[in-house]
Formats: sequence, structure tokens, C-alpha cells
Amino acid sequence: MILYGLAVSSASYRVRIALALKGLTVTTVCKQLSANEHRLQDYLRINPQGFVPALVLDDGMVLTQSMAIMEYLNEAYPTPPLLPKDLVARARVRAMAQVIACDIHPLNNLRVLRYLEGELLHDKTARDAWYSHWVQAGFAALEGLLSRESGESLCCFGDAPTLADVCLVPQMFNARRFSVNLIAYPRLARIDAHCRELAAFVGAAPERQES
Amino acid sequence: MILYGLAVSSASYRVRIALALKGLTVTTVCKQLSANEHRLQDYLRINPQGFVPALVLDDGMVLTQSMAIMEYLNEAYPTPPLLPKDLVARARVRAMAQVIACDIHPLNNLRVLRYLEGELLHDKTARDAWYSHWVQAGFAALEGLLSRESGESLCCFGDAPTLADVCLVPQMFNARRFSVNLIAYPRLARIDAHCRELAAFVGAAPERQES
Repeated sequence: MILYGLAVSSASYRVRIALALKGLTVTTVCKQLSANEHRLQDYLRINPQGFVPALVLDDGMVLTQSMAIMEYLNEAYPTPPLLPKDLVARARVRAMAQVIACDIHPLNNLRVLRYLEGELLHDKTARDAWYSHWVQAGFAALEGLLSRESGESLCCFGDAPTLADVCLVPQMFNARRFSVNLIAYPRLARIDAHCRELAAFVGAAPERQES
Repeated sequence: MILYGLAVSSASYRVRIALALKGLTVTTVCKQLSANEHRLQDYLRINPQGFVPALVLDDGMVLTQSMAIMEYLNEAYPTPPLLPKDLVARARVRAMAQVIACDIHPLNNLRVLRYLEGELLHDKTARDAWYSHWVQAGFAALEGLLSRESGESLCCFGDAPTLADVCLVPQMFNARRFSVNLIAYPRLARIDAHCRELAAFVGAAPERQES
């Protein structure tokens, strides 16, 4: 398998963690954000949408959209599971993942920040306030969801990483990168710190990718 | 089960379709967008995030996030399936659904449009251009993905509705509501028109909800 991604892209980072949790070794092609290389013609032949990540399977099939890729990995390589067995628990883990994947990340990715600056002529202050606003709203929701789960588990659900943690850690990374104040989310901070010490998360970290 | 939703909310509309496709009858509590009722205190006790939809199961468990709710419904009530059996095909259907659920809808929902107008002081013209921009980008990607699937199927994948169609129809509805030019997406238009004639989609339509 070949993973096309960007080092700091939350969606790419998620898939790197999921692959590592599954013990899968893939060839990674890490593009440079600054060069905007992933928009280039050769990459558009792999993913016409131009977005990362894309996972090319050994038979040449191309999978796109990080959440779809991770559900695929979880179905194709069931061990260790990234979702609990109980159906309601699965729904709650997916909901936590989607607070990040649907309510935070789409508002703050590069193409949106560029539209705010390029089309709508906002300055860096307004852009950063926008970024912070949606992170804070989403993290407040997630902190609330976690407070409903029983006990003080090591991860978002139980003591082993699920799709929720796989989404959380890259979003926390990018929130720090944009200097978002994270003081109000002690549960998220604790889970993030725990997960970042696990081998799969260490190896997937942006600073460990080839530049 | 009780479904809390809004008539025109894409995410609520999706879940109404999924419930109807599964043949499930639920009590629906349809809030009014204009009254902003779903933000009210009593609803926050059900979903602290304040978003619709929320599905309350018979045992009182609350499920949130439309995509998580629909995956739950598909796992708890497997017939008819809303995802194909083949793992790669499942990933491709989920990717199509997520082009809408992650790349279009989060940028265009009410809280974002309100931020553009209220915080960033943009007028209706700029707001509508924003709305149209992200719909066009996402629909172009989706039209491209559909052109890669073989043949002229009735739905996004094959001839029976999947999660992709369940996401497509509400997004097409809202794109029309915001007068987005849809001329460039003949595949989407054809599939949308087909699905809207199916009973489950007819009953879930916004105009059929109690106001």
C-alpha cells in the first residue's frame, strides 16, 4: 500500500496512526504543504479531488477520505479493533470522532483559511480567531461527551485507542500549532498526552515524517 | 426511538431517510430553525452540543452525529443494507458520503453562515458565494468519483440507496434552496431525481415534516 499525505495534515496524520495501530507498513509519500505539490497533475490522477490522504491498495484501487480509509482498515484488519463491539458504544466513539472530523477540521483546513484570507480579505488575527472559535466549540462538545462516559479511562473510550483518539491527537497537535487555548479541556489533554506516548502515535507524528 | 431534528437540516434529513429505508417508525420532534428552539435548555439536556439530529433509543441512550447514527442503524438493522458487502466498495461509498458530510455540509451549516454575517460582517452576497463555493467544489469531486464507477447505476453505487445517496439528496435540496447552479453535475442530478421518487425519500422530505 502507498499512503499519500502531508506531515501536518490532520487527516493524513489520522491515517498514519491507524495504519501503525494495525501494524501495517506502507510506503508513505509525504508531500510538502508549502510547495502545494499535492495539487499537481500527477497527484490529481490518483485523487481527482486533490486532497490528502489517499491510500493506494496493492491492486491499485485508490481510497480517499480519512474516515472512510480508517473504517476500511478496521474492517480489513480487525485486530486490534479501533471500535468497540457494542453497537451503542461504537456509535458513541464514532460520534466523538465526528465532532472532530465534521465539526472542527473541515472549517479549519488550509483551503478554508486561504479563502478567508484570499477571497474574504481577512487578516491573520481574524483567521486565527476563526480557527480557535471552531476548535473551542468542538473541544467543549467533546469534553462534555467524555464527561458522560463512566470513569477515568486512559483513552476516549476505554483504555485502548479507538477512532476517537486517532482523530483527537492530530487535532490537538494542530490546535497547539495555532496557539489555541486548551486550558478548558483537561480530559482531552490527559488522553492526548497518554496516546502520544504509545508507539503507533509516536511514529505517526508530523515531526517524524520525512520532509 | 425519538428523533430530534429540524425539517431542512441536511443532517436531520439524512437520518430521517435512513430510518425510513430501514422501515423504522420513530417519534420525530421537529424543531423550528427560526425559533432556535434546539438550543434551548431542555434540548441541551439531551444533546449538550445543541446540534440536531439526536436519536434517543428506547432505553434512553442518546446518539448524536448523523453519520454515527446511520452507521448504528445499519449495524443494528442490517436489512436493507446501506453499504455494499465488498470492503473496497464500502470505502468508496463512505468516501462519497464524506465528500458531502465532511467537505461540504460543515462549511455551510447555520452556525457558520451566522459567523460570517455576525462576526465577520459579510453581506448576503458574500455569504451566498461562500455557500456556493463549497457546494461546487464538493459536487465537482463527487461527480468525478461517480464517473469512475462503472456504468450508469440508478444510485451512487449500484441500483439501491446507500449512505452516499442518503447524504446526496439533502445536500441537493439545500443547494437548490440557496440557488446554487447545479448544471455541471448531471450524474448527481439524475441520481437525486431517482432517489426522490422512492418512498423512503418522499416521506423524509422537509416539506413533509410537521411545522
